[in-house]
Amino acid sequence: MPEKVSVIVVGGGPAGMTAASRVKRLKPNLRVGVFERSAYVSYGQCGIPYFLGGLSRFEDLVHYPLRVFTEERGIEVHVRTEVVEVAPGLLRARSADGSEVAYEWDKLLIATGARPRRLNVPGAELEGVLTLRTLEDADRAQRVLAKARRVAVVGAGYIGVELAENLTRAGKEVVLFEILPQVMPTLDPEMARLVEEELRRNGVEVHLGERVVELVGESSVRKVVTDKGEYSVDAVFTAIGVTPEVELAKQLGVELGRTGAIRTDTLLRTNVEGVYAAGDAAESLNLVTGKPDWFPLAPVANKMGYVAGSNLAGLAEEFPGAVGTAVTKVFGLEVGRTGLTERRAREEGFNPVSVVVEGRSRAGYYPGSASMTVKLIADAEAGRLLGAQIVGGEGVLARINAAAILISKGATAREAFFSDLGYAPPFAPVWDPLITAARVLLGKLRS
Amino acid sequence: MPEKVSVIVVGGGPAGMTAASRVKRLKPNLRVGVFERSAYVSYGQCGIPYFLGGLSRFEDLVHYPLRVFTEERGIEVHVRTEVVEVAPGLLRARSADGSEVAYEWDKLLIATGARPRRLNVPGAELEGVLTLRTLEDADRAQRVLAKARRVAVVGAGYIGVELAENLTRAGKEVVLFEILPQVMPTLDPEMARLVEEELRRNGVEVHLGERVVELVGESSVRKVVTDKGEYSVDAVFTAIGVTPEVELAKQLGVELGRTGAIRTDTLLRTNVEGVYAAGDAAESLNLVTGKPDWFPLAPVANKMGYVAGSNLAGLAEEFPGAVGTAVTKVFGLEVGRTGLTERRAREEGFNPVSVVVEGRSRAGYYPGSASMTVKLIADAEAGRLLGAQIVGGEGVLARINAAAILISKGATAREAFFSDLGYAPPFAPVWDPLITAARVLLGKLRS
Repeated sequence: MPEKVSVIVVGGGPAGMTAASRVKRLKPNLRVGVFERSAYVSYGQCGIPYFLGGLSRFEDLVHYPLRVFTEERGIEVHVRTEVVEVAPGLLRARSADGSEVAYEWDKLLIATGARPRRLNVPGAELEGVLTLRTLEDADRAQRVLAKARRVAVVGAGYIGVELAENLTRAGKEVVLFEILPQVMPTLDPEMARLVEEELRRNGVEVHLGERVVELVGESSVRKVVTDKGEYSVDAVFTAIGVTPEVELAKQLGVELGRTGAIRTDTLLRTNVEGVYAAGDAAESLNLVTGKPDWFPLAPVANKMGYVAGSNLAGLAEEFPGAVGTAVTKVFGLEVGRTGLTERRAREEGFNPVSVVVEGRSRAGYYPGSASMTVKLIADAEAGRLLGAQIVGGEGVLARINAAAILISKGATAREAFFSDLGYAPPFAPVWDPLITAARVLLGKLRS
Repeated sequence: MPEKVSVIVVGGGPAGMTAASRVKRLKPNLRVGVFERSAYVSYGQCGIPYFLGGLSRFEDLVHYPLRVFTEERGIEVHVRTEVVEVAPGLLRARSADGSEVAYEWDKLLIATGARPRRLNVPGAELEGVLTLRTLEDADRAQRVLAKARRVAVVGAGYIGVELAENLTRAGKEVVLFEILPQVMPTLDPEMARLVEEELRRNGVEVHLGERVVELVGESSVRKVVTDKGEYSVDAVFTAIGVTPEVELAKQLGVELGRTGAIRTDTLLRTNVEGVYAAGDAAESLNLVTGKPDWFPLAPVANKMGYVAGSNLAGLAEEFPGAVGTAVTKVFGLEVGRTGLTERRAREEGFNPVSVVVEGRSRAGYYPGSASMTVKLIADAEAGRLLGAQIVGGEGVLARINAAAILISKGATAREAFFSDLGYAPPFAPVWDPLITAARVLLGKLRS
């Protein structure tokens, strides 16, 4: 007879470890087991580019040592252990040494996360072709980079641009390829242009609207072939997005949503009795569209983990949803976005009206001020704020956070204008760039 | 017969100039006159401490040259002109050269602002005793400071602590006196303590709970006498708060509110037909208490000016109110607050529950992280967020803005926890300090 574990969590990332910790906090006597394929749990995946750029140390990427979870919190953590089969009430897993274990469970949380999309071209399996997900990947990438001078990055989303910056910082020549005609597809094109210019200004060779068709090399990759040219390189990072890891979910008969991620209710229950899903593997409600959406972002994953853990322990906590707030830093630029892009707003059936307003980060008379470009998008009929994108030299988080909450609360452009934001000469002009943008948007909506 | 001006604005500060500009934008054919006692309109009053600290230039404190208002916007601006009498439909003013003018008006906006409270002790009229309001005051202060080595600052509110920092930056020895047992009375004591420590760490001599009873000197001030001791100084700044400037309002029979500032309705109309009030002279709705309150803060004044201007031009724009968001920088600390303090919450009849949580400004593995202390206050019954105070080395505005909007929208601690704030290693840990504080508060509210 397999042993019985009350709660099994598959996946030791942010959602999984938060959920496991939450269950043990609420119900210390429940047996909670976590199965994680890699050697690490709860590590700073988002920190890998900075590790490669030499800003962060490898050992700092692990948020908590394993013993915090095992000894302090009493969670049974199985690292280097792959779940090979899951069925109602049963789970089989194989550890790296080949030994198999089987457990019974009452409740299961699927927190399997998202995996990088594979670049499906000849040569993708060559040495020196790198993809980042685990700390093992980070370690391998660092060893490859040690011998590389010129490095290709395929894909100009968050990870792609963060890699471009950090590889430049590490002294590499960086060639960035993006199949779309713009970098950062979560931004509208005119805002993405500012990021593209910043990349070029810092020496990144940016190729937009260019499709990689082959990677060439003997054993190691030596050349990137696109539909427009050939480029000699010493290594290639692929960063063309992620896809939810749902194989185990499918084994269990768990339904997926339209996005391809796991469909859940607000309590994060799947359609299968006793099975929950949280984090990058699962959908959550988009507070702007009111529809299920997919937000593979660490803070969303963490909060879903908290909710799933609460419910696995017997509470009835609802996850309200998200608006897709994300920020990053690209050389000297801070980049933030929340809600819908203008393009997406149109696809969702809104009638978007937008403004792009340039402001400053500080009072005019205070030194060190930087430019800040704010795009706001509202629905023409209701005046409701749908999205915001902000790019600037500093202070972006202060405005994108404000916009994110306004959008979450269904605020109008008028309400945004009347937001009581903080002001002091070192931090903002007396008309904050977000307020000014809201005022201009309000004028446009009323005209 | 006096000439007729459709709209007269008394006071050329943020509220007045915003209102005048708004009227001319909406109704270019209306005659709009502004009367301003000092030589400057629309100047950066908040910049004066930084000017004295050598960070800002005098000429940069003027946001727009006068001709922008007169030539470009067509406003009739009378500087160095004091309104000496106002009655329904009539106004008399005297310019600095002694000449008098009289005008008829249809509508009047009282935007007279607030004036510094006077330190009511013997010697307060001595040379070298300075108070900051106008740019003329700034100029005079700079001349006095040129010969001063040791300077007293009386009052440790925003202006007081900003002066303490800037005078230190300018190489002065600073002695700061505060009658209350803490600095910054808009913070709760445990948060104010962090600011006090930062002041002391940077060499400011801080005297709390100490009342200044006399200033002593021949012609120039030489000594501050308190209820606890005597201090030799070369100059004294008084910064003991401001009081609404309501003399003209009283002449007109305009009603004042409980706070002493002018009472208005949401359209910013006073009780007198055709008379509006905006800015530091007027009350506005406190969105937490639901009662009229007084927020003498530039962003509130500006937005009230926008609303008053809209309505003076015939629209019906409502000013929704404010939550009292304010930020400042004190040496290496950023300080933000919004909503009610715990003390004030209790006075207002709430049953406040609070937490103080310490977090970091960036991911643990990202260099340059600073400590951030977050205090959140919620009502025990409804769980509604009532106030937030944040002190830290960086990133305070990003959290206080988010808290301000949550509080404005009546959000609960639970809703605050689920805020979809931006995250990236250079800007936040994956559990943002504000989110963590909301989580701890939520736990406390539920226990």
